[in-house]
Amino acid sequence: MDATPCRVTVYNEFVHEQKNEDVRRLYPDGIHGAIGQYLSGDGFAVRYATLDMPEHGLTDEVLADTDVLIWWGHVAHHKVSDAVVDRVQSRILNGMGLIVLHSGHLSKIFRRMMGTSCGLCWREAAERERLWVVNPNHEITAGLGRYIELPNAEMYGEQFDIPEPDELLFISWFEGGEVFRSGCVWHRGRGRIFYFRPGHETYPVYHNQDILRVIANGCRWARFRGNTQTFGIEVCPNITEPLEPIEDKGIVFAQIDHPTA
Amino acid sequence: MDATPCRVTVYNEFVHEQKNEDVRRLYPDGIHGAIGQYLSGDGFAVRYATLDMPEHGLTDEVLADTDVLIWWGHVAHHKVSDAVVDRVQSRILNGMGLIVLHSGHLSKIFRRMMGTSCGLCWREAAERERLWVVNPNHEITAGLGRYIELPNAEMYGEQFDIPEPDELLFISWFEGGEVFRSGCVWHRGRGRIFYFRPGHETYPVYHNQDILRVIANGCRWARFRGNTQTFGIEVCPNITEPLEPIEDKGIVFAQIDHPTA
Amino acid sequence: MDATPCRVTVYNEFVHEQKNEDVRRLYPDGIHGAIGQYLSGDGFAVRYATLDMPEHGLTDEVLADTDVLIWWGHVAHHKVSDAVVDRVQSRILNGMGLIVLHSGHLSKIFRRMMGTSCGLCWREAAERERLWVVNPNHEITAGLGRYIELPNAEMYGEQFDIPEPDELLFISWFEGGEVFRSGCVWHRGRGRIFYFRPGHETYPVYHNQDILRVIANGCRWARFRGNTQTFGIEVCPNITEPLEPIEDKGIVFAQIDHPTA
Amino acid sequence: MDATPCRVTVYNEFVHEQKNEDVRRLYPDGIHGAIGQYLSGDGFAVRYATLDMPEHGLTDEVLADTDVLIWWGHVAHHKVSDAVVDRVQSRILNGMGLIVLHSGHLSKIFRRMMGTSCGLCWREAAERERLWVVNPNHEITAGLGRYIELPNAEMYGEQFDIPEPDELLFISWFEGGEVFRSGCVWHRGRGRIFYFRPGHETYPVYHNQDILRVIANGCRWARFRGNTQTFGIEVCPNITEPLEPIEDKGIVFAQIDHPTA
Repeated sequence: MDATPCRVTVYNEFVHEQKNEDVRRLYPDGIHGAIGQYLSGDGFAVRYATLDMPEHGLTDEVLADTDVLIWWGHVAHHKVSDAVVDRVQSRILNGMGLIVLHSGHLSKIFRRMMGTSCGLCWREAAERERLWVVNPNHEITAGLGRYIELPNAEMYGEQFDIPEPDELLFISWFEGGEVFRSGCVWHRGRGRIFYFRPGHETYPVYHNQDILRVIANGCRWARFRGNTQTFGIEVCPNITEPLEPIEDKGIVFAQIDHPTA
Repeated sequence: MDATPCRVTVYNEFVHEQKNEDVRRLYPDGIHGAIGQYLSGDGFAVRYATLDMPEHGLTDEVLADTDVLIWWGHVAHHKVSDAVVDRVQSRILNGMGLIVLHSGHLSKIFRRMMGTSCGLCWREAAERERLWVVNPNHEITAGLGRYIELPNAEMYGEQFDIPEPDELLFISWFEGGEVFRSGCVWHRGRGRIFYFRPGHETYPVYHNQDILRVIANGCRWARFRGNTQTFGIEVCPNITEPLEPIEDKGIVFAQIDHPTA
Repeated sequence: MDATPCRVTVYNEFVHEQKNEDVRRLYPDGIHGAIGQYLSGDGFAVRYATLDMPEHGLTDEVLADTDVLIWWGHVAHHKVSDAVVDRVQSRILNGMGLIVLHSGHLSKIFRRMMGTSCGLCWREAAERERLWVVNPNHEITAGLGRYIELPNAEMYGEQFDIPEPDELLFISWFEGGEVFRSGCVWHRGRGRIFYFRPGHETYPVYHNQDILRVIANGCRWARFRGNTQTFGIEVCPNITEPLEPIEDKGIVFAQIDHPTA
Repeated sequence: MDATPCRVTVYNEFVHEQKNEDVRRLYPDGIHGAIGQYLSGDGFAVRYATLDMPEHGLTDEVLADTDVLIWWGHVAHHKVSDAVVDRVQSRILNGMGLIVLHSGHLSKIFRRMMGTSCGLCWREAAERERLWVVNPNHEITAGLGRYIELPNAEMYGEQFDIPEPDELLFISWFEGGEVFRSGCVWHRGRGRIFYFRPGHETYPVYHNQDILRVIANGCRWARFRGNTQTFGIEVCPNITEPLEPIEDKGIVFAQIDHPTA
């Protein structure tokens, strides 16, 4: 199953890089390019999608050909079409992995998958961040030391309004006094979701080798390896034939109109 | 805190009872009436809401005055307005409890809170159901025996497409050969959510004393008792003043447009 | 159910206070006394147990009369008798709550309940600690602000070798650069367990009103409110009479010796 | 990392097969042999361990050379030495996977890892069992249909006294009316644990290809792929050098005896 390369699509709204020279200097090929180049070098089959492409580059064909979708967005969440969000959600429930980075916490797709507001508090003051590994069992933390240190970071602080993670992987310490659950995983339907906090358009976070390694680990982890036969993913089939005999109790059922799912 | 009565609003789409005589005979005051009468007798302050009321009876004023919302719907999920769903979600994240019954698994509000399709498989064949208590720690199972038995039930079968429950309380055995996770709880934001499977408009399930007791236990459990001071519930405040001194590293930040949450 | 006072037994190994004058000055009535006096004032029925009492004060009679047991130990974990640990574990599985404080992470009873080593890293340098509320839903965090600040604390750092908590309530930030999961809850059998990090014999942590309030909230939360009818807690009954008819398939079973549980 | 074969040690107490001809006819090479032969054919490097071998075949050398340990026991749990249990627990916390089968629920090692009694109820009546896949995301359920059906099985019924599983994979339906959480996973320290219910010495369950496939999937899943750098697994190092400067507050610490872990 793992013999073929894992197909990753990197979505970036790609707004800051086109408007702001400082950001462009940090990410001349866009944030998506910085991430994608690392992944290509690590054996992934990489494709890009940006907000201004038709259907944001996330057509049915692209999604069907994607094992893991990485999402970076910040100022243009509201410009993402609801139809595309519906389609991405459906594809996740059917087995595509999703990795949400940094300010993607407020993206439509992340809030859709979580069911919560995904709020937090923040500060932009170039402060030191240290991401502590709190789960040594998980493959996403493989190959790291006890923590990752970033010299300058935007702060994200608790309370982070998310469902209790299935597993908590990283907790951040910030110079200014806050903490944050910076690496969290959930499964939804057949799909796997990884939220990873680091990143900001004004810091070279996506050039840090530990951060890139975690993203690559995340892609390996998020690739589908489950069961394709279960019912219940977006369908509600009527199983009229029971597996076991049901006693005839002589009950006449009311004729009820049924909903169409 | 628990000295004042718990305020419960019972929402019922109230369609079957008005269209179908068999259902009306079972529930002459509506499904909401059957549930509400039990809860009133158990000390709750009960209010009703139905689909055909203005704003489905779920105005800002009603929600602000509601500790726990019970939801029953089946054929008219699509008629519930998105604006009301937004409002209910917001109120849950801020501390209102939600109890979703039976076919409410496909309601807009439940799918919104879960982030999944909430699909399952089903059969209507008046079969025996036995709900086994698998969590003896939880207050929702207090006062019950080892299981609840229902002589006739619509079957709901796995795979039920929900997030892994925070705690699993009941598993159903069905005469026809299936199983189902029939009692599940989650917390989201400041709110608590309980999904409870039993019920169908064509069976007298909401006259069963054990089922009603579980619903009442669920209301007691779902009432808010948490923390009101945390940020992050639907807001993303900028905390410009750090708690600790941050070293001035001489970095000039790019001027970036920020998103409005 | 909650009308009668919650009965709390505070266990303290009570070694430091008898040997060290500095500690005695901080806790003239022992750490157990400081905690117990607050709880008494908050309506709890309090009893004490110390290492040097017969059976460490934790006889069958005392445990049977205890709703919640608080555990503080540090240098004398190895002196606690295994028979008492067995007894306490059994009582927890049958519904007694357990609150483990600070250095109790290495106590026999906590390691028994967790199944892990409960290791961590630490430093004693009178550093500032800030405990952030990360779960606004839980009754243990009720009445607090966004965080609790302690001016001087022993540091405990990750990785903390515990099972993934059922719910994570507090994360600590430390002046020296570490983080820690400082408030965690689990349920085991019919019992509830709360680990709460703060405290050290050389700091006046158990005179801090927020810390004491959390301990009191913990006692209220940990009191049993579940189901007493389930089997499976320490027993494996043979249910020879099935609830449903089983087809006779003519199989002759081998006569096998069965284990005695 | 996965290029080398996964090294599996199959422990079987190996008592029934030597005492009882009916069992021997079903498992002429022992239950361990039936499982091991399938695993060998699936590319695993298999080794065996039995109760009557020195140190039950579970020496330090064997454990150091084991990625995943499978455990089958029934009538001789009490004959397993506590020293071996200590050693196996330590190896699990440091990254070895553990798969516990059927009556192994009462083994010392499983109860040690869980912290609970692991009780349940049971019946031996050759009844039909159907194991439903409730988690389509997990690699342990890969390649299966919607359920596995066993024509004759010993019944295990709820309430099963275990910690809430990290993920629930299978729920069993039994002909006689009970249900059971038959496939559960947890992580502890760096290790992964999978409990899988099916099996009994008097039924040919370990010749069923779906059951064997699940065990093989379990081994693949349980193999270590995490982080080796974290502290906290069985150790409590004193980190005297802080990562950040700590303000000197002029506090003189009491000289306290420290515990030896």
